[in-house]
Amino acid sequence: MSTRAGILVTGTEVLSGIISDRNGPWLSARLRERGIDLAHLIVVGDRSQDMLAALEFLGREDVDVIVTSGGLGPTADDLTAEIVARFCGREPVLDEQLERRIAEIIAPMRKRWPQLDDEAIRSSNRKQAVVPEGATVLAPVGTAPGLVVPPAEGRDGPTVVVLPGPPRELQPMWDAAVQTEAFRAATTATTVYRQGIMRLFGIPESEIAATLRALASEGVPLSGLEITTCLRRGEIEIATRYEPDAEELYRGFLAAVSARHRDTLFSVDATTIDDLVAKQLSDGSTVATAESCTGGLLAARLTERPGASAYVLGGLVVYDDDAKVRLAGVDPAVIAAHGAVSTEVAVALADGARMRLDAALGVGITGVAGPDGGTAAKPVGRVCLSVSGPGEMRLTRSVDLPGDRLAVRDRSVTVAMHMLHRVLLGEHDGPRIAPGGERSVPAR
Amino acid sequence: MSTRAGILVTGTEVLSGIISDRNGPWLSARLRERGIDLAHLIVVGDRSQDMLAALEFLGREDVDVIVTSGGLGPTADDLTAEIVARFCGREPVLDEQLERRIAEIIAPMRKRWPQLDDEAIRSSNRKQAVVPEGATVLAPVGTAPGLVVPPAEGRDGPTVVVLPGPPRELQPMWDAAVQTEAFRAATTATTVYRQGIMRLFGIPESEIAATLRALASEGVPLSGLEITTCLRRGEIEIATRYEPDAEELYRGFLAAVSARHRDTLFSVDATTIDDLVAKQLSDGSTVATAESCTGGLLAARLTERPGASAYVLGGLVVYDDDAKVRLAGVDPAVIAAHGAVSTEVAVALADGARMRLDAALGVGITGVAGPDGGTAAKPVGRVCLSVSGPGEMRLTRSVDLPGDRLAVRDRSVTVAMHMLHRVLLGEHDGPRIAPGGERSVPAR
Repeated sequence: MSTRAGILVTGTEVLSGIISDRNGPWLSARLRERGIDLAHLIVVGDRSQDMLAALEFLGREDVDVIVTSGGLGPTADDLTAEIVARFCGREPVLDEQLERRIAEIIAPMRKRWPQLDDEAIRSSNRKQAVVPEGATVLAPVGTAPGLVVPPAEGRDGPTVVVLPGPPRELQPMWDAAVQTEAFRAATTATTVYRQGIMRLFGIPESEIAATLRALASEGVPLSGLEITTCLRRGEIEIATRYEPDAEELYRGFLAAVSARHRDTLFSVDATTIDDLVAKQLSDGSTVATAESCTGGLLAARLTERPGASAYVLGGLVVYDDDAKVRLAGVDPAVIAAHGAVSTEVAVALADGARMRLDAALGVGITGVAGPDGGTAAKPVGRVCLSVSGPGEMRLTRSVDLPGDRLAVRDRSVTVAMHMLHRVLLGEHDGPRIAPGGERSVPAR
Repeated sequence: MSTRAGILVTGTEVLSGIISDRNGPWLSARLRERGIDLAHLIVVGDRSQDMLAALEFLGREDVDVIVTSGGLGPTADDLTAEIVARFCGREPVLDEQLERRIAEIIAPMRKRWPQLDDEAIRSSNRKQAVVPEGATVLAPVGTAPGLVVPPAEGRDGPTVVVLPGPPRELQPMWDAAVQTEAFRAATTATTVYRQGIMRLFGIPESEIAATLRALASEGVPLSGLEITTCLRRGEIEIATRYEPDAEELYRGFLAAVSARHRDTLFSVDATTIDDLVAKQLSDGSTVATAESCTGGLLAARLTERPGASAYVLGGLVVYDDDAKVRLAGVDPAVIAAHGAVSTEVAVALADGARMRLDAALGVGITGVAGPDGGTAAKPVGRVCLSVSGPGEMRLTRSVDLPGDRLAVRDRSVTVAMHMLHRVLLGEHDGPRIAPGGERSVPAR
């Protein structure tokens, strides 16, 4: 039997699209991991009647658990605890121990802003300590406590997990919530599914659809596997959810996909291309970049994770042609002969980055990000990339990427990450390179 | 009287958090612009009973308009048109003209993939041409038509605008939908609100709350203005919605905020700091960057918009200390004396970027992004920034930024954008600089 859940995200700024909701997708993934089926995700503003209506709707939809985010602050438009108490049929009561705990948390702030009104603070503090009677209180990570609220004795209905809105508070408090007796009691019926993630790069989504059809007609058993494919930032993700006793089936499916897509399957254990490249580089390699159309995005992506200083030496943003010459040492004659967007310039940029920064590997990117600057010969989306390493090791590609300026820039960085990965695996153009000095990879 | 709306986003990939929903926030903003109150935004998977339950919930909540996105494709799990027909009490019928139109659209694809099964295509094509009787059909931008579906004759209930999932199809089709007679009829009661946006940088949100209280107690009339404040990427946004006859009140509020926050109010017409800096730079200036902890993010942000090549010459990513010396010409003795994270190094980076790229302005950033590398003297979040220009013009700051690595990097770039803006307005440290060579701006 499966457990059903609903998510209720509160906040007028989220509903109005002013800030984007990071909690809904995060909570959805966590529920999925626990084998809980999410039925509805609802966003409402800070209006008590809309919030209550949404809770009652979820109750009628027979969910076992509702997770709410937001509306736990000290001000008058923070209504969640009160509305959830009403929904669960539990009286709001002052939790004095919690009141003292919150007072301790805000004490340092009161020192920083001594001009604040004491009485106003006390009453805000008290408001945050009023919780539904019988609820399990989750210790605050910020100043707001969370709650796990079962329906009142003798009542039927979902258990409500009440979490604060800031993601850095919500996330650790969710981990605490799932450990509570009340949460466990509400989700006992849950089948714990397993999930397998495969990631591929360099083939269109339709090829995966064709593979699934072919496997089915070859008699590879796929029933019992809930397979979702999805195209994300140019990569294809195949997520498969299955019950523990379908593990063998999944192994068979994985083997079949691996056999058919050896070239493009790069991850079978949910690791990302960023994980793989970071791991490869931290095995004693170093990298430097020279970017034109991506304007620093590759360097930014490589330095996103802690510890990147061990292998990222630095980069050059050579947006201007003069900068390509001056910073990366590109021969102006090469630009004149082939144009700034050419595999020749990409190679010169990769070599320049590598030499200027004395790195083991250099990456060069040059392209037409658009919306202007495209020509018939070099349309918007044309991007030339090269990775160079010690000796004559080099991997160079020219690709045509779809989408707008933002998409072309983002996708270019993904292509560069995959090229870096391949070079670190030992792949390079070597004698296989075509006479024109370039080869195409399928661009998605 | 106001018009109320609901948004229903469909799609298992969106509900499961695998892809993030861009349509909900976009539609929300469009409704808001038209003065339509959004009550609920619901995300459901591709399950007919969940979809119908959500529509019925919105119907009970007395919304006048429901906008749906997704579920209009040719496959069996694309259910929206059928479910909406049922909800509105209208029979699904084949629209033959629409069937021919879709056939024309997909004809070129059939040429590209001749191996596809003709009968399968014909039946998919026909499925997409089955629409609720009496609905207004919106011409497809991709292959899927949109719909505006009023309740059946004699029935009460919301009018449903049915749009496809891909944002590049949904957005132009929304513009067509609002022109239809059926949409207008459903929203006649709408008051068209006006909206004013003010943006501030460099003060805490609590200061704005204090200003609002002070204005109220000074008798500045604020009723009739619906004021929302929100902290976004370190900037404060004050969004005010009001009826046209409250224009005078809003002018008064704007004047009062301007008077109190002259130093930190940078935009009163919804322009962003990126708009402002781009406009200032394109008036004949040029810029170059040298970034350590932000790893290229400032260069990437400056080159995000088309036309940036006119003023962004390039940048240096000097993650490694050796790169700071080698690429940006920072004196190793300065690093040894003050540490890599110091205002002195920030100044040297700004100067180095400016000189190496021969730019009018140079920006240097160095800091501790974390999670490691912090010390008592230089904790995680400490970031030193400098902008240098012709002559001795220079603006240098040391700030302590909150949040994790991602937030510190992102916030640093925002601080740099505001410093660049101020220098382009003619502000610089000049004689006001403190003996230590640094001044603090409030860090948020």
